[in-house]
Amino acid sequence: MIGVVATLKVQPAKASEFEKVFLDLAAKVKANEPGCLMYQLTKSRTEEGVYKVLEVYASADALKAHGSTEYFKAAGAAMGPTMAAAPSIEYLDGVE
Amino acid sequence: MIGVVATLKVQPAKASEFEKVFLDLAAKVKANEPGCLMYQLTKSRTEEGVYKVLEVYASADALKAHGSTEYFKAAGAAMGPTMAAAPSIEYLDGVE
Repeated sequence: MIGVVATLKVQPAKASEFEKVFLDLAAKVKANEPGCLMYQLTKSRTEEGVYKVLEVYASADALKAHGSTEYFKAAGAAMGPTMAAAPSIEYLDGVE
Repeated sequence: MIGVVATLKVQPAKASEFEKVFLDLAAKVKANEPGCLMYQLTKSRTEEGVYKVLEVYASADALKAHGSTEYFKAAGAAMGPTMAAAPSIEYLDGVE
């Protein structure tokens, strides 16, 4: 199992545009990726424009498959102009 | 929906003791808390002894119920002596 915490800094004026694109992506992930066990968008309570995606994958293969889908690449391109900084992605090893 | 990222710094020599107590707690959470949608223990790939718990709750009530169970309190007491520092808990608002 692999965990991911993706921290995304969004331009506050573009937050609703970002959320729309991300939630559409999340719906596609849930519909198509049985190896993705959690893909939850959350928002910081203390820092404006800061989102964290809490992700859990059943395996390294499931994580790799996620990143190689056409809809993931398309969402990344669509979210790019809403970002205030480069994303920060932390990979974590599941303990079972 | 509420997300939580709990960062736990464990004494490296007590890591296996910590993992045993935590995984027993996680099994109880999964068995008893339908409002807890994810409760995954993960380990840092870069910092020795650093664990992150990725948690998602259906509601604030579900999070409150989690923290008030007897098994959560007992696990907290059992994990205390394995810790190297106070836990750092970040609460996040789910975006749906």
